[in-house]
Amino acid sequence: MNIDGQPTRTIRPADDGRTVQIIDQTKLPHALIWATLATLEDAAAAIKDMKVRGAPLIGATAAYGMALALAADASDARVEQAYATLYATRPTAVNLRWALDEMRRALPPLALPGRRAAAWVRAAAICDEDVAICSAIGDHGLGIVKALWDKRRAGGAKRLNILTHCNAGWLATVVWGTATAPIYKAHNAGIPVHVWVDETRPRNQGASLTARELSWHGVPHTVIVDNAGGHLMQHGMVDMCIVGTDRTTAAGDVANKIGTYLKALAAKDNGVPFYVALPSPTIDWTIADGLRQIPIEERSQREVTHISGLSADGSVVEVRLTPEGSAAANYAFDVTPARLVTGLVTERGVCPASREGLLSLYPERRQEAAQ
Amino acid sequence: MNIDGQPTRTIRPADDGRTVQIIDQTKLPHALIWATLATLEDAAAAIKDMKVRGAPLIGATAAYGMALALAADASDARVEQAYATLYATRPTAVNLRWALDEMRRALPPLALPGRRAAAWVRAAAICDEDVAICSAIGDHGLGIVKALWDKRRAGGAKRLNILTHCNAGWLATVVWGTATAPIYKAHNAGIPVHVWVDETRPRNQGASLTARELSWHGVPHTVIVDNAGGHLMQHGMVDMCIVGTDRTTAAGDVANKIGTYLKALAAKDNGVPFYVALPSPTIDWTIADGLRQIPIEERSQREVTHISGLSADGSVVEVRLTPEGSAAANYAFDVTPARLVTGLVTERGVCPASREGLLSLYPERRQEAAQ
Repeated sequence: MNIDGQPTRTIRPADDGRTVQIIDQTKLPHALIWATLATLEDAAAAIKDMKVRGAPLIGATAAYGMALALAADASDARVEQAYATLYATRPTAVNLRWALDEMRRALPPLALPGRRAAAWVRAAAICDEDVAICSAIGDHGLGIVKALWDKRRAGGAKRLNILTHCNAGWLATVVWGTATAPIYKAHNAGIPVHVWVDETRPRNQGASLTARELSWHGVPHTVIVDNAGGHLMQHGMVDMCIVGTDRTTAAGDVANKIGTYLKALAAKDNGVPFYVALPSPTIDWTIADGLRQIPIEERSQREVTHISGLSADGSVVEVRLTPEGSAAANYAFDVTPARLVTGLVTERGVCPASREGLLSLYPERRQEAAQ
Repeated sequence: MNIDGQPTRTIRPADDGRTVQIIDQTKLPHALIWATLATLEDAAAAIKDMKVRGAPLIGATAAYGMALALAADASDARVEQAYATLYATRPTAVNLRWALDEMRRALPPLALPGRRAAAWVRAAAICDEDVAICSAIGDHGLGIVKALWDKRRAGGAKRLNILTHCNAGWLATVVWGTATAPIYKAHNAGIPVHVWVDETRPRNQGASLTARELSWHGVPHTVIVDNAGGHLMQHGMVDMCIVGTDRTTAAGDVANKIGTYLKALAAKDNGVPFYVALPSPTIDWTIADGLRQIPIEERSQREVTHISGLSADGSVVEVRLTPEGSAAANYAFDVTPARLVTGLVTERGVCPASREGLLSLYPERRQEAAQ
């Protein structure tokens, strides 16, 4: 996607051949700051401090972290130490582990002198694989958007309204995003998409990240509070919803940012198609019932009671929203049952949110797929 | 309800017999500041600047504003001038107009020397009538809460979880509130209620006002983001929902703060009873179809893009949440169709959300009630 018209990835090796640049996402949406990662420790801190977030981007950063770690010492011991350091940053992130396993598998068989260069090549390949997956999701999703736009245009519509929740975007991946990939592809193809961006309390990834990246690329959008989507759908102002997911069960239940379920209910109640975009590695084939089998993370109360933003003097200030003495609860995700999902958009195509639907695209999983 | 154990109304004549005290709600939840209204202009400004809000409390303030206006001059001309000044502050507020009409009807027939005292008496009566209506709503709602608690307790529950949205509370009325009245009555009766308080973006009336008043009175509660209610209901953590309404149609559709519809959908999907508390003057007997016939106010984008809170240095600071250049939309209300409402709790009792339900309590409205 573009920033100031320039195609831009969220992570890139610097021209010096020794360091990596990332967008420091803790500074978004108010400032675009590129941070330089020069060491293993820089990469680990970037993940831990959430300068990078989003499963694919965390994986990509970990891969480059491993490459950085080998600058002076490419021994097996150093590989193991880098693995342990990077893995400890966010031990529940599936992509992080996957990327580190890839690197650990690729490096030790090589002779020491070749390892450093090989690590850079493999890290770049991990990034390119993410781009390819997201791009394929975008192509399949574009088919849906195009078909819908053809219908709406025939009915006299001037734009196609797509609602999304949280940030399953470019900023969570290397480029394209998952839920946003069909949006960018449609926009690039000249379809007049307009995006309703749920602000996505409590961490406001919609208002700060999705709005920011759509704005950079020039996609028309409007930020709304999470309460507004139902009203918009009741009044025909949403043509489709598309969101990402952190984990999809073999039966097509999807765990995504808290509030997704409420939007899916409203979509169902108003006949609005509700799609979920996902790279297939986020499918958990071992479970079927998302409501019973996916544990929901509880995060700090402070994300609810406090919020940060840009003050009039240009500094970022944290303020308290709730009265002293009122407790808050902070459930990070909810589960949207498959019955509310119109379709799953994966890198292999679009399928119904069901076991048979998923197996039609991933037949090799039939044995392991939970019932 | 109590503040520091003292029964407290949101508006009260001062001991000096010449002024009125209100809680300055623009300073909530971070400070409890009583403001003194000494003149007509003070009362008008308090309404216009939203130091008081909530239909019943605005009506009560307007009534006292009229009493204050007559301090030096109780002529018919002064009554008309005060009426015009107060009416102009929030011309769409139905209760404001009703309270002013009451005062205008009561005063001119009286001899000049008696008008000032009569105005104070009538203003106090308007407050007392609101208290009586809210208390009756509370008594009828208490019946629902009690029956539910008897069931839950028999099942081994330790507390009864009630979810509410926005502030249909004590702070919107003189005392009790509407949706909160059954909660306070249940708490006072020893039922272990716990309230899930939706923060209610964009204006955060839940996080700032509902949490504040529940906390003063000592009712256990937890603030949640508006996205969380669906997850809580999916997991049996909500026993009932109760909200207020700005306008109810003759068929039982309810317009309330944006996001109410989403919670009602989740309640329906999970078999959680969803009640709406309302004083009967907010029933609009002339319309039936809320979705088509209730226009939804659009408010300033700034309520979405910016937010205020207490900074670490103790000052209240406004910060920007969204990137420069991203637009926002701000629909203030949505309509929850009657089919999603378990019952309407009015000062005359509880009824189904339907024309026949409402007419069973208000049979005198049969002729005018829209179909």
